[in-house]
Amino acid sequence: MLLLDVGNHSAKIWHDGLISSKSIDELNSFLPKEKAYYISVNSNFKPNSNKFIDISDFFEFDTIYKGLGVDRIAGCYIIKNGIVVDAGSAITVDIMIDFVHQGGFIVPGIAAQLKANEEISKVLKVAINSQVSLEALPQKTVDAVSFGIIAPLVFLIKDMSKNKNIYLTGGDGSFFSKFFDNAIFDKNLVFRGMLKALEERGIKC
Amino acid sequence: MLLLDVGNHSAKIWHDGLISSKSIDELNSFLPKEKAYYISVNSNFKPNSNKFIDISDFFEFDTIYKGLGVDRIAGCYIIKNGIVVDAGSAITVDIMIDFVHQGGFIVPGIAAQLKANEEISKVLKVAINSQVSLEALPQKTVDAVSFGIIAPLVFLIKDMSKNKNIYLTGGDGSFFSKFFDNAIFDKNLVFRGMLKALEERGIKC
Repeated sequence: MLLLDVGNHSAKIWHDGLISSKSIDELNSFLPKEKAYYISVNSNFKPNSNKFIDISDFFEFDTIYKGLGVDRIAGCYIIKNGIVVDAGSAITVDIMIDFVHQGGFIVPGIAAQLKANEEISKVLKVAINSQVSLEALPQKTVDAVSFGIIAPLVFLIKDMSKNKNIYLTGGDGSFFSKFFDNAIFDKNLVFRGMLKALEERGIKC
Repeated sequence: MLLLDVGNHSAKIWHDGLISSKSIDELNSFLPKEKAYYISVNSNFKPNSNKFIDISDFFEFDTIYKGLGVDRIAGCYIIKNGIVVDAGSAITVDIMIDFVHQGGFIVPGIAAQLKANEEISKVLKVAINSQVSLEALPQKTVDAVSFGIIAPLVFLIKDMSKNKNIYLTGGDGSFFSKFFDNAIFDKNLVFRGMLKALEERGIKC
């Protein structure tokens, strides 16, 4: 079984548990040999075979949020109670209680914030310092920028989490997970949600 | 007396208490009739008259921060105890205790974060909702983006402030001030710091 999570910049592919990725261009010329169940937030993805099956309507997701991206729905879908952080090109934070989505918010991802800083001033063109301390105030630009990207978000998530678990996924999910005591990093969280939605329709891998 | 605060995108001008602004190009062809005391973080500013006097060395500022921008120094210079937030193209947050700078951090400004979101996905192209509640989780994209820009920063600043005052300046300083109980918005904070530095050198307006 093939699963595809088509994001803003590329597609992640799950093939019987093995993970790979393709650009949107590559995906548009890809002819799967078996059924390829997908979710997509990218209007440039044009499936060119009837093997591609859009499963965005398969999720029975309890929320009052208008226009919630299907990738966020999938990422939250197996979480009964907890905070779901998908740290990719954007970072989305969603809260689940008893399988009911409570709402969520969005901040630009690490790369996008670094680029934004760089465009403001050449002085702010730095790489992130992954070792920056959140316990002490920064004393140089690279730490000031790194702290500014990490600390506000981490403090808010910690405050929201209280006794809830924090589930992280996405390209920078592992990076952020080390700032929390009660964090679970699962790079396949979205695929697990897709598998649950398929199983609920009687489609098993 | 003329004071100039030359920023990343334009220059703010203080003329005996009246405030105006010029683009960097305008400033580069500007011939002041009196002494123009300036600080600049913009290497494109090329003063073309000896009436321009760089006062960046006039500040006797106690910090161990390496490479602190002179605009941040000026903004903190009259603050004995407090948190100084300069919300412009970038947002800088600095903490002062007994006139000693404790460190600080930087996040992209509101416009830069909105642009960063927009570049990630067309779906995230929204204006900020200035009325967004920070007490409830967002239930639609415009609120999710607005909350994501405002809430993490406001929450962290509140946590840091404890019984300290929060001093805000910059183009978005007034906007942010309404999210705090103990906030003082002063659009002329940087000029007040410059005036103090000049007075310490015996130059009075």
